[in-house]
Amino acid sequence: MPIDNRGLTDAGIAGYLESLSNWGRWGSADQLGALNYITAEMRKTAAHLVRHGEVVAISLPLPTDPGPGNPRPVQHYMITTGEGVDAAYAMDHVGVSCHGMAISHVDALCHVFHGGKMYNGFPASEVKSDGAHKNAIQGACDRIVGRGVLLDIPPVRDREWLEAGEAIYIEDLETAERRQLVRVGEGDILLIRTGRHRAARASGAGGSGSMVGGLSGPHASVLPWLHERKVAALGGDGINEVMPSGFAEFQLPIHTVAIVGMGIHLMDNNDLEALAGTCAARGQYEFLFALASLNLERGTGSPATGLAIL
Amino acid sequence: MPIDNRGLTDAGIAGYLESLSNWGRWGSADQLGALNYITAEMRKTAAHLVRHGEVVAISLPLPTDPGPGNPRPVQHYMITTGEGVDAAYAMDHVGVSCHGMAISHVDALCHVFHGGKMYNGFPASEVKSDGAHKNAIQGACDRIVGRGVLLDIPPVRDREWLEAGEAIYIEDLETAERRQLVRVGEGDILLIRTGRHRAARASGAGGSGSMVGGLSGPHASVLPWLHERKVAALGGDGINEVMPSGFAEFQLPIHTVAIVGMGIHLMDNNDLEALAGTCAARGQYEFLFALASLNLERGTGSPATGLAIL
Amino acid sequence: MPIDNRGLTDAGIAGYLESLSNWGRWGSADQLGALNYITAEMRKTAAHLVRHGEVVAISLPLPTDPGPGNPRPVQHYMITTGEGVDAAYAMDHVGVSCHGMAISHVDALCHVFHGGKMYNGFPASEVKSDGAHKNAIQGACDRIVGRGVLLDIPPVRDREWLEAGEAIYIEDLETAERRQLVRVGEGDILLIRTGRHRAARASGAGGSGSMVGGLSGPHASVLPWLHERKVAALGGDGINEVMPSGFAEFQLPIHTVAIVGMGIHLMDNNDLEALAGTCAARGQYEFLFALASLNLERGTGSPATGLAIL
Amino acid sequence: MPIDNRGLTDAGIAGYLESLSNWGRWGSADQLGALNYITAEMRKTAAHLVRHGEVVAISLPLPTDPGPGNPRPVQHYMITTGEGVDAAYAMDHVGVSCHGMAISHVDALCHVFHGGKMYNGFPASEVKSDGAHKNAIQGACDRIVGRGVLLDIPPVRDREWLEAGEAIYIEDLETAERRQLVRVGEGDILLIRTGRHRAARASGAGGSGSMVGGLSGPHASVLPWLHERKVAALGGDGINEVMPSGFAEFQLPIHTVAIVGMGIHLMDNNDLEALAGTCAARGQYEFLFALASLNLERGTGSPATGLAIL
Repeated sequence: MPIDNRGLTDAGIAGYLESLSNWGRWGSADQLGALNYITAEMRKTAAHLVRHGEVVAISLPLPTDPGPGNPRPVQHYMITTGEGVDAAYAMDHVGVSCHGMAISHVDALCHVFHGGKMYNGFPASEVKSDGAHKNAIQGACDRIVGRGVLLDIPPVRDREWLEAGEAIYIEDLETAERRQLVRVGEGDILLIRTGRHRAARASGAGGSGSMVGGLSGPHASVLPWLHERKVAALGGDGINEVMPSGFAEFQLPIHTVAIVGMGIHLMDNNDLEALAGTCAARGQYEFLFALASLNLERGTGSPATGLAIL
Repeated sequence: MPIDNRGLTDAGIAGYLESLSNWGRWGSADQLGALNYITAEMRKTAAHLVRHGEVVAISLPLPTDPGPGNPRPVQHYMITTGEGVDAAYAMDHVGVSCHGMAISHVDALCHVFHGGKMYNGFPASEVKSDGAHKNAIQGACDRIVGRGVLLDIPPVRDREWLEAGEAIYIEDLETAERRQLVRVGEGDILLIRTGRHRAARASGAGGSGSMVGGLSGPHASVLPWLHERKVAALGGDGINEVMPSGFAEFQLPIHTVAIVGMGIHLMDNNDLEALAGTCAARGQYEFLFALASLNLERGTGSPATGLAIL
Repeated sequence: MPIDNRGLTDAGIAGYLESLSNWGRWGSADQLGALNYITAEMRKTAAHLVRHGEVVAISLPLPTDPGPGNPRPVQHYMITTGEGVDAAYAMDHVGVSCHGMAISHVDALCHVFHGGKMYNGFPASEVKSDGAHKNAIQGACDRIVGRGVLLDIPPVRDREWLEAGEAIYIEDLETAERRQLVRVGEGDILLIRTGRHRAARASGAGGSGSMVGGLSGPHASVLPWLHERKVAALGGDGINEVMPSGFAEFQLPIHTVAIVGMGIHLMDNNDLEALAGTCAARGQYEFLFALASLNLERGTGSPATGLAIL
Repeated sequence: MPIDNRGLTDAGIAGYLESLSNWGRWGSADQLGALNYITAEMRKTAAHLVRHGEVVAISLPLPTDPGPGNPRPVQHYMITTGEGVDAAYAMDHVGVSCHGMAISHVDALCHVFHGGKMYNGFPASEVKSDGAHKNAIQGACDRIVGRGVLLDIPPVRDREWLEAGEAIYIEDLETAERRQLVRVGEGDILLIRTGRHRAARASGAGGSGSMVGGLSGPHASVLPWLHERKVAALGGDGINEVMPSGFAEFQLPIHTVAIVGMGIHLMDNNDLEALAGTCAARGQYEFLFALASLNLERGTGSPATGLAIL
């Protein structure tokens, strides 16, 4: 079944790159993008949302086996073990190429280019063989802290999960808001659940699930809504957009427009099952959210464990 | 100048392994150790400590150059860059062997052995060539969240930093408590500053500093105090103990007793300069602290960016 | 179709470990195994076999994509490229875990264990988390040089390739000898072609081919023949034995008996198509063969490009 | 003591790039450079030089510890060991960034650029983030086979080794030729010994030696001689040129002129001590030489163990 693009075209997406652009909004030197929406006051308010002291991590286990969407398996090698007679220490090595579809990670604003440019107009050529000289993940390593809001979409459609290739539209997001008695606003770190990992587990496919047939996620037509609501960062259990996108030119339109145009850090491939359960049980879909990346100078992203505290 | 061991001997440290032991305290299956001290209520209280909404990261940049204490440089390789004409995405690889003396990381409870055992009596042989089957870091990836307390030691001695090999004793910690109007208590995540990185920068030695001549840090005689105060986790700007230790058998006595005996996760090689400055300016040495490790199944530790929110 | 084991049983294979054993044959400290068969005189004779000065490499390209039999893709990352304006040097990183079924490599005599022992009775525990303290590949890095003989089996059966799971028996080897006018003898480096990669290319499956349904290769019943002929090293285009083996206990009986018992280095997953073509064209199936491993202290094997010079 | 440049200037070296150029010599598509000098007949003749059947490897052990000239230590991690009760196989991972000064490796013709070009005029930009699309090492993996000649320079000066920074001139090479009764000619693979590793061992500095103060090696003024003699490949125990070079612009003039201009593959950091001993004992300085690189598509070089057979 082809995706319903609601009249949006490649030309329309190209238009978003103009109409939704945040280039220059926080100055010509800015490398943080929409994270600038988050104020200290918002962080303080978010911290005071904590009513129970419960912490829910949203990362998947780092996948060491190859598979669909995991062409570069995580390397985990032991340097020393406890098996020797006089073993005193155990040490290991972990190697991660984070931008697959099976690894919980955050995309830096240098991860995507369009027309030879990245967010805020920096030339793509600033990302060289020694790493990103602009928009690297390092600058954001302590900035994805604020009010988190989970919008849980499968219940909107009275289902346990959305199917691969199933798109989420603005009305789904707003229905979830009404159903959950929450409203996404300026500076929020928005998490959108599709139920991907519940589906994967139900099918016995393991934590990361099959990507055959695509992934569920937001449709490109939500981009103006994200802009209007002034979302600071966007996370999900898939890659934060429906796949395939149904567009010929913009195969990953949200990656292009949100990252390049709007300066929104995307947090891909998180496991939102436990968080959705906790939110439902507490009747509380807002929380303090913190995702600290590795302190990787010139990095294009980082594996990370996001924490919801509520 | 040899270290003043205050009468403590190798035999005394061996005795700590008995007298300060937390084996069995939280059940024979426990793999979290002193993190069990932290209750949901404590976390809630810690969140409400946030008065300003300021976030301070305490990680050092991941070091890609070899050097003293960094025998396994972090690997950062680009998979794709923005230099090509049609570049659409940038991706990279990061490889980390975290247990050096230049990398901000957390030690899992499987990192250290004594007498063929690790924390809670699990055999060291459970750490095999495929990783740690007990006490791995994964279980703690969302548990190092609670009240953080910084004890800033150089001001206690009217100095900017402690020298390499200079030991911190109980009276230093307690003087800092009085000076800072804070008291370390049950479930606290304690951070102890020696000023290592301020010294390194003053000497032009870069962020990680020289380890020639050793490192400043707590003396093994503080172990009973950590036990009595029921500290949940311990972090520092060095490796959380003075080096060299001055003991013949226990070359890293705090690593051995705190990790193996007491089940305390250690957070090594953090940069506490910015945090100390903020705490001093705010007159506030307690805060919400969160350190999320990578979700590394069977890992012996993890590079991590700890966040203080105050 | 189940494999015809010609009456050989697991017990029979266990018996080979006794009857074909070379433990102690070259002294209790020996770590070279059957490579000892090769004398300097044999090497000189082999060099004088060179009639045309033609060199044929037998390695597959190192596979960077995951796939069947390649769970740990080779890592090839650029450190510097030529894309920058002032580029002066290009450098890269290659990471290889060689013992997959898609990588041309040589197995060291420490690669396989049986009953807690490796070749020449060394305890398996000598292969520790810092590598192999006995039977490492380093010692053989300059020893796999001598007379190479190719036995090309598909022509024996009037076919272009053998099918996955199809076994090669003694009579196939001897028929090939008669057909090719060559006789495998003491100190020879024997290469056996199944046509695996020709089949893979014909099916469009790429160089390493599919391993679904197994691999063609020698049947365990050839082991006494290899022993009697005093073969020094064994190579092939598969893994040097038919898969599945058809045995319950010994799933890779040739790996176990040849490596552990007989001390034969195996050279797996080579591309013998070009060599077979050259040999057929020249009417010459013997040549000087040289395979130099990486100089990897304590290594369990090595990726390598074997060279036939004829 | 500053190096004696014999009147050669940066301008003179720039001139070599013109006067000694082999661009186009073997066609505009050629990617093998001076290896084209080697004919099949030469290889056959070289094979027949083998009189004793002795094999001497010239690689250093791959260095896993950082040190001067080894900023990217080789990674050697075990995947499985023999320490577990039921251990059946041992496997490991090796990661190599070969272009340091402590790793025996061969430089591909894409390793060095000058003026935005590499050998045969291909643009440097053909070396992209996915590797070298021209002049990669793969094409040469079976081509460095032919007559090897060792020129042993320290005896020319009645010494055991040359000092760091000590340059080798044409007259040294020719004196060695006369002394050794050998003449370097068309298609030869030339190895030049400085005694670097003997010096390192004498000083207790280990196999790779200290690079403090530089390295001994050929002076840039030997380039016309290499051209005239039609050397096919050049190897040494250092990096095949004296360091520091004494030139302001061309810091590694032989790397630039020999690789970019002349298309000569360089084989750096080999251990020529054993070979020199064997050659002296045999009174034979010519031999069959074979160096097979890894079959690394788009690679800039390869670690390798060169073999001299004599």
